[in-house]
Amino acid sequence: MTTPSQPGAVQNACQPLLDAVAFDANGLVAVVAQQHDSGEVLMVAWMNRDAVIETVATGRVCYWSRSRGRLWRKGESSGQVQRLVELRVDCDGDTLLALVDQQGVACHTGRRNCFFRAWRDGGLVTVAPVLVAPDALYGQDRF
Amino acid sequence: MTTPSQPGAVQNACQPLLDAVAFDANGLVAVVAQQHDSGEVLMVAWMNRDAVIETVATGRVCYWSRSRGRLWRKGESSGQVQRLVELRVDCDGDTLLALVDQQGVACHTGRRNCFFRAWRDGGLVTVAPVLVAPDALYGQDRF
Repeated sequence: MTTPSQPGAVQNACQPLLDAVAFDANGLVAVVAQQHDSGEVLMVAWMNRDAVIETVATGRVCYWSRSRGRLWRKGESSGQVQRLVELRVDCDGDTLLALVDQQGVACHTGRRNCFFRAWRDGGLVTVAPVLVAPDALYGQDRF
Repeated sequence: MTTPSQPGAVQNACQPLLDAVAFDANGLVAVVAQQHDSGEVLMVAWMNRDAVIETVATGRVCYWSRSRGRLWRKGESSGQVQRLVELRVDCDGDTLLALVDQQGVACHTGRRNCFFRAWRDGGLVTVAPVLVAPDALYGQDRF
């Protein structure tokens, strides 16, 4: 994806998208990340305006980390990058669907996706294996 | 799914699930509804504790409508019911993934899913057709 050379130009190019998003009182929008080909729901995270702009401008998914209070370029510590395939907006603009190509695992536990606990027969069952040891993913940083 | 005869018994049966959910300051948790067989992400909505309990007890998906401030049994007005296939919890408990069997369309616009606007070549493009006219779905009630 071509990135306009000026930050203002990038924002201007994204304006129709930004206008369609109903950011909440904290300036955030929920984002569902889905593996584009398999349909697997990988994770849900949040973006602010800058994260939306950076994501579409660079083609690499960038979230807003609520716990750390800063932009979170997915994979910046773990190497488990998400390449953006397509970004979609829901009917009332308060959720985005990011179709991505996930490199490696999406979850900080080392599983492919974050939804690995299923409610079955009155108990929570782990339904996805750890593919990468978390110690191998992170140093001091969890994401 | 068998429903215990006493409301307290229903809640007790769900307690391990409720304990795993990190409800937010408003007592809500985000829920991604995904068609269980095709993998299509249908919509994102919210549940409170009562909605979680009712959903797993009845096998029919029930949300909390933030706009109306009450339980929202999906399809109660439109007839477009979601049958629960499996409920999953993410790694930090602040999002649920509901694998469902969606009857008809999930979106109030009459589309199969709510994420029908895609960001392509600098503009938002509608990528899913209206399958049912909204007027045919609703009377006075929008959901």
